[in-house]
Amino acid sequence: MKAILVNNDKSLRWDEVPNPVLTEDEVLIKVEYAALNRADLLQREGDYPPPEGCPEWMGLEVSGEIVEMTEGAKAKSNYKIGDKVCALLGGGGYAEYVSVKYDMCMPVPENCTMAEAAAIPEAFATAYLKLFFEGHAKAGDTLLMQAGASGLASVIIPMAKAFGLRVITTVISDPKNIQHLGADLVVDTRVQNLPEILKKEEAEGRAIDIAIDCLGGQNLGDCLPYVKYGCRWIVIAALAGANTTIDLKNIYKKNIRIVGSTLRSRTPEMKAEILSKLVNEVWEKVANGDIKPTVYKVLPIIEAEEAHDILYRGENIGKVVLKVQ
Amino acid sequence: MKAILVNNDKSLRWDEVPNPVLTEDEVLIKVEYAALNRADLLQREGDYPPPEGCPEWMGLEVSGEIVEMTEGAKAKSNYKIGDKVCALLGGGGYAEYVSVKYDMCMPVPENCTMAEAAAIPEAFATAYLKLFFEGHAKAGDTLLMQAGASGLASVIIPMAKAFGLRVITTVISDPKNIQHLGADLVVDTRVQNLPEILKKEEAEGRAIDIAIDCLGGQNLGDCLPYVKYGCRWIVIAALAGANTTIDLKNIYKKNIRIVGSTLRSRTPEMKAEILSKLVNEVWEKVANGDIKPTVYKVLPIIEAEEAHDILYRGENIGKVVLKVQ
Repeated sequence: MKAILVNNDKSLRWDEVPNPVLTEDEVLIKVEYAALNRADLLQREGDYPPPEGCPEWMGLEVSGEIVEMTEGAKAKSNYKIGDKVCALLGGGGYAEYVSVKYDMCMPVPENCTMAEAAAIPEAFATAYLKLFFEGHAKAGDTLLMQAGASGLASVIIPMAKAFGLRVITTVISDPKNIQHLGADLVVDTRVQNLPEILKKEEAEGRAIDIAIDCLGGQNLGDCLPYVKYGCRWIVIAALAGANTTIDLKNIYKKNIRIVGSTLRSRTPEMKAEILSKLVNEVWEKVANGDIKPTVYKVLPIIEAEEAHDILYRGENIGKVVLKVQ
Repeated sequence: MKAILVNNDKSLRWDEVPNPVLTEDEVLIKVEYAALNRADLLQREGDYPPPEGCPEWMGLEVSGEIVEMTEGAKAKSNYKIGDKVCALLGGGGYAEYVSVKYDMCMPVPENCTMAEAAAIPEAFATAYLKLFFEGHAKAGDTLLMQAGASGLASVIIPMAKAFGLRVITTVISDPKNIQHLGADLVVDTRVQNLPEILKKEEAEGRAIDIAIDCLGGQNLGDCLPYVKYGCRWIVIAALAGANTTIDLKNIYKKNIRIVGSTLRSRTPEMKAEILSKLVNEVWEKVANGDIKPTVYKVLPIIEAEEAHDILYRGENIGKVVLKVQ
């Protein structure tokens, strides 16, 4: 089969690789679409190696058709050959076929195209992990979601709204571009100062309960004085800078927790639990249109490099998806 | 009755105050001993106000005799007039009498003097909160306990050892002074560099799972690269400096959590749950001598200022206790 490989000069090629060999409880998916994640860029640069036992090529999520099943997968799951699924992968999605344990698959939700389905697993599982497992989100909480135009925000903001949270988000482009996501307050950080906004919010009794932060930088330390008692500040990346100086008095006086959180490194059991909760609690909200995967652009798999460039340039609002076959 | 009050110049006096008035579910304790906590110093300086409804005078824990009970306390608890108890308070312990809800009391453990009993509630509840509620400690984990000669360390180190943890601690005095606590590794930070020690420990497969940190300062940020995946770094004060610069990449790549944690601000329900777990899980380890409150010195209540000075000078190994009557 073919897959996208990384050349020594970090350019990409669509080349022959060995077919996947199914191990216990796995199914083989004939990949229709593979969605991009920022982690793919890190992996391509050599900064984010795939977990042991995964293919070396990139790709954390796909949609496609189940074309082969082990005896274990047949016995333990309700899937059958020919089912359309989307799946969360340790890696290896940029390929014609991928093998994955049955409990990393989810049925394609009603009212979703296969391209949209590919854009679901990583973002929705990440969103659910951040909001509920780490953030302990409940109706009435206020969430600060950094980078409102990101792929993750396009899921987290509607998910948070669908579960009754109030949402503050940030953009460095026209706030109107993300109006459809339904955030209560959009801060344009090109012209507005986030710590000052949070200070004002706190003064008016609307301090944040949860932050989901892919930016980091000194902004993190500067915002901490204004969060609510018990705030969960969830760090998922540090695109605006890795270093931040924090005042520990804020931390211990307000029982704040700064929580590092990546989905990829979680145990298979926890991932399976998250996926099962998604199907049980969130699929109905996808089916009725409350939450929708936002696909920015679909490109053929052989244009993976151009697809990556869209992420490098940060021009996408929502997910970039590769059409494999 | 009399209590210790703070003069405008921050000096202390033993003076007349109104008697406590019992509210629902409370008992009245005739105080025998009141133990000191660092929070008392902050309160005296005006930096740590007592929660609403508490007396303005200091004192987070006492031992004494129950001399009066409300109908609610009689109905809901097993205590009776004349019982010897120790109690966790929102404030008001530096006095002849204090009123407190029955579920903030614990029976004096077997083999404890009343002076030792006064030194138990805050330190033991704090230790249990940090280790188990925040730290998710389990046998085999490695704990870094900062400031091994502190009152809290004199409880946390033996408690951690009694529950099967490996303990690294730090001192700025002769390591022999805390030999009796049973830490596995004592780092003398006058002559040893803690981040380097942790780096070496990590290289040898013994990275820390939990830190309980009352020091903070840049040391915190400098240690983070060497902790184990999923480490819980619990910040309870920042005696070595409030500001620390952290590299967020450490946080999100290793799913580290930095957790601010003070006992005083917890809900009454959580405090009651902790006290009940102490009686059920820890009292037997106190009775058989595995864990022992360490009383450094007992002074009469009228020498409260001298008692505070001992804490200001940092000379105490273990708790300083005031004898009230």
